[in-house]
Amino acid sequence: MARSVTLMVTALLVRFGSAVAQQAGSDLAYEPELPPDLNSPHGSLWPLPQNVQISPELYRLSEVQFRIVHSPQSTASVGCSILDNAFRRYFNYIFSSSAKTDQRGSGINGASSRSTEELRQLQVTITATDPECNQHPRISSNEAYEISVMQPVAILKSESVWGALRGLETFSQLVYEDEYNTHLVNKTEIVDAPRFAHRGVLLDTSRHYLPVKVILETLEAMSFNKFNVFHWHIVDDPSFPYQSITFPKLSAQGAYHPVTHIYTLTDVQIIIEYARERGIRVIPEFDTPGHTQSWKGQNNLLTPCYNGEKLSGMFGPINPVLNTTYDFVNQLIKEISWVFPDAYIHLGGDEVNFECWKSNPSITQFMQKQGFGSDYRKLESFYIQNVLDIVTANLKGYMVWQEVFDNAAKLKPDTIIHVWKGAYQKEMAAVTAAKFHTLLSSPWYMNVISYGQDWRRIYTVEPCNFNGTAAQKKLVIGGEACLWGEYVDATNLASRLWPRASAVSERLWSSEETKDLNDAYKRLSKHRCRMVRRGIPAEPLFVGYCDYEYKG
Amino acid sequence: MARSVTLMVTALLVRFGSAVAQQAGSDLAYEPELPPDLNSPHGSLWPLPQNVQISPELYRLSEVQFRIVHSPQSTASVGCSILDNAFRRYFNYIFSSSAKTDQRGSGINGASSRSTEELRQLQVTITATDPECNQHPRISSNEAYEISVMQPVAILKSESVWGALRGLETFSQLVYEDEYNTHLVNKTEIVDAPRFAHRGVLLDTSRHYLPVKVILETLEAMSFNKFNVFHWHIVDDPSFPYQSITFPKLSAQGAYHPVTHIYTLTDVQIIIEYARERGIRVIPEFDTPGHTQSWKGQNNLLTPCYNGEKLSGMFGPINPVLNTTYDFVNQLIKEISWVFPDAYIHLGGDEVNFECWKSNPSITQFMQKQGFGSDYRKLESFYIQNVLDIVTANLKGYMVWQEVFDNAAKLKPDTIIHVWKGAYQKEMAAVTAAKFHTLLSSPWYMNVISYGQDWRRIYTVEPCNFNGTAAQKKLVIGGEACLWGEYVDATNLASRLWPRASAVSERLWSSEETKDLNDAYKRLSKHRCRMVRRGIPAEPLFVGYCDYEYKG
Repeated sequence: MARSVTLMVTALLVRFGSAVAQQAGSDLAYEPELPPDLNSPHGSLWPLPQNVQISPELYRLSEVQFRIVHSPQSTASVGCSILDNAFRRYFNYIFSSSAKTDQRGSGINGASSRSTEELRQLQVTITATDPECNQHPRISSNEAYEISVMQPVAILKSESVWGALRGLETFSQLVYEDEYNTHLVNKTEIVDAPRFAHRGVLLDTSRHYLPVKVILETLEAMSFNKFNVFHWHIVDDPSFPYQSITFPKLSAQGAYHPVTHIYTLTDVQIIIEYARERGIRVIPEFDTPGHTQSWKGQNNLLTPCYNGEKLSGMFGPINPVLNTTYDFVNQLIKEISWVFPDAYIHLGGDEVNFECWKSNPSITQFMQKQGFGSDYRKLESFYIQNVLDIVTANLKGYMVWQEVFDNAAKLKPDTIIHVWKGAYQKEMAAVTAAKFHTLLSSPWYMNVISYGQDWRRIYTVEPCNFNGTAAQKKLVIGGEACLWGEYVDATNLASRLWPRASAVSERLWSSEETKDLNDAYKRLSKHRCRMVRRGIPAEPLFVGYCDYEYKG
Repeated sequence: MARSVTLMVTALLVRFGSAVAQQAGSDLAYEPELPPDLNSPHGSLWPLPQNVQISPELYRLSEVQFRIVHSPQSTASVGCSILDNAFRRYFNYIFSSSAKTDQRGSGINGASSRSTEELRQLQVTITATDPECNQHPRISSNEAYEISVMQPVAILKSESVWGALRGLETFSQLVYEDEYNTHLVNKTEIVDAPRFAHRGVLLDTSRHYLPVKVILETLEAMSFNKFNVFHWHIVDDPSFPYQSITFPKLSAQGAYHPVTHIYTLTDVQIIIEYARERGIRVIPEFDTPGHTQSWKGQNNLLTPCYNGEKLSGMFGPINPVLNTTYDFVNQLIKEISWVFPDAYIHLGGDEVNFECWKSNPSITQFMQKQGFGSDYRKLESFYIQNVLDIVTANLKGYMVWQEVFDNAAKLKPDTIIHVWKGAYQKEMAAVTAAKFHTLLSSPWYMNVISYGQDWRRIYTVEPCNFNGTAAQKKLVIGGEACLWGEYVDATNLASRLWPRASAVSERLWSSEETKDLNDAYKRLSKHRCRMVRRGIPAEPLFVGYCDYEYKG
């Protein structure tokens, strides 16, 4: 049995699945037979655009001649540095890390590959009066774009810079190299826009500290996958790496190390700007009242727990019965609202353990006074309600984990409920029936690993697959791939996240009908090799190779 | 609840296990409660030596003054470059990547840390007439050593260089830094030797090509864990990266790429020498007659399969009925025997699929002539028997996967049977009852992953836990951590292998009684931070941090 691929094609070997798998993982293996044709009609495009027309006609690109430029019709011009920087970035990617020979169109052996037709420019046209060069991306930013690749000038058109950024990534994915290293692009028409507006990646910098460099690398890889939200789960029980200007004791006492394992204001600003340049919003999460063991730098904030009538020396969730708590929260939210420009803050609210509250006499007294009986969920909602009011007063919107909704807190109509627990279809139905916007993460916990091609399970999730009206489905604004940090730090973050999170990115960007696993496998295997060549150690999908292996 | 560790101690946070785990992995999580005391009485030693006596007395080491030297009594001296190189390597590790403050002995605040006592030298004494400076390690190499750390001169004594290499690693693990960056070592006595002689790591360079640099990095990490065998599963179905001098067509046609994705003779020699310098044997595996789809560069070697009476165009295992097959095998084994100096070759022999053989008329004819009936296991054994005879004629010993034993091939008494299938206790009993040496790998497939601290499962395996006499148990010569390559390449190899394979290394080196998971957790978490500081991206065991995080 001869190998089913030619040597010069970036390809995955597929015939040996079953024999290989038995030795490797015995009955644990999940090795579907894969089709022998290793090229998708859509090449290495990922996530797949909504409408693509690729013609056999080919154009060459010269590194000396080719330019990405503002078109004369564009409302943006040189000086719109978010685009100027993107032009340079993608010029470099196109000429240093394009996919190798691709058999799309008439390919390497067809007459047109010897064509002398040349693509001289990619002209970028922004059509809105305000191109938003200096703004931050928002939930309502228009990421739609159109690409027309036709000799001698390709056109990329979008309303604002945000669509242009997505289109530049797509254009870079259209270019590939033939065996003589000539850069080629097919005549192509693309009309594209995301299916969902909120496409996020959650990183957890509390369970392990992640160096700024690792976060920036993740943002860059996110842009390759058209993710547009970095959900920064910045603090939690184990450590408090956020250096607050107002409350510097929080990180001084709560970080793993008060100097080396913190994020300074400059760090945060660099991350936000790096994200902005890639059309990515940064939403910080300050999870309360639980998950706050590391907040001990603030006196009298955490609830002192009792062992019978005596203080146990332990502390529980934030103390919801003291006025000082809300003064503190107000000042912290004020600072966060200024540091993080996004219109939303994630307020957490998950997994509050009531045991310590139950043990504390002043809390018992407060419960009686408020008429809460023994329903501590009411106390939790009381706390959350106060925090929500504070956030609203600071002119921010909020996202919360699903418990806040489950516990019946009164929520502003624009609240986003983040679904993370197991029976998610039921929860999505309930949340949207109550007319709240919602985000899905339950099936997309990237930290949860298993042997084999689990990207297939991740990919086949359909966020709107729950009982509900069309109006309810419209309330699903997207989802997030969550990489919780128990077992993840700088050593394994990138290879654990990529390309598995890419499966989420296509589900959230592409059409609901884009669900052919075989086609996805072909495109994703090339997309992962492209990520590797761009410096991201994305792990392999299965047996095979990249023309350019990761060099470390 | 306050954090249970002080800031300057490399430590793992442990109190938050359950709450943290629910969010992260829901019911998948495996989060035992861990003890609050984060220091083992044995510091960061890994694998734990057989006998260790650590005293509170402390000595300082000066980077300017301290030297590792050949002792005047040693049979080795300057010019024994395997030691000279190791002295330099460990000097660098001691002064650039020692563990941070350790509370062993009287620790940072005790009087003795202000002691002016200094350790000036580590003198290494080799006692055998031939120190084996220029030899290769063997199965019978003596790795035992003794260390006596006592001011002003520490002594490391071993019979040959192989024990000295192990002792140097141990000594480097005894040194740690206090908060002023002073390097300290406790007065210590160690008498140590491995429990098992064969402690291997298998890498698979066929399913994915691994750059030479990645293999060298793995060998270096293996030396940190006292592994002594690199089992190089160099070729298999998907690709043939070994560039044979005798049969260059094998890699020219069988490698993923005939130039960039091969191991040249020089590559192989560099790997063998790098391994030798670390006391690591390199055992190549040329797995036949199955797992040979990539061997198509040799004409008439693979069995042509039939579809009824017609050739199907597919090929099966190596054709066992042609004399040319054995001429080829003989020449290849001759070359391999010269290229790889180790006394053993791994001949594979696993997972032979008989379907193609059954379809081939000339094989059917041969079966009849030989009186094999329809028992194709007899044909397989016929082939294997011929190969074993060829290997024996080339003065090499051999290892085989368990099927070769299961199928009742006649084996030389010194054959090593490699157990990899699920019901391993039964197989170990049968193999040793037949008086063969055996190696365990079944529970140590490092490519098989699951959520949580699976190092605990790996660690608690007891290789001699099967029904058998004491004489049978003595036939267990060790085991191997296998990292099959379906889902592993340069992007994720190191973080997948380390520190999970470290759990295997302690099981194979340390005493059978060394099995306290809590103590292991404490030492291993520090050992993994040391690996990170030495440049290996070993992934975290759980929530926590290293003083020096991986920088990428």
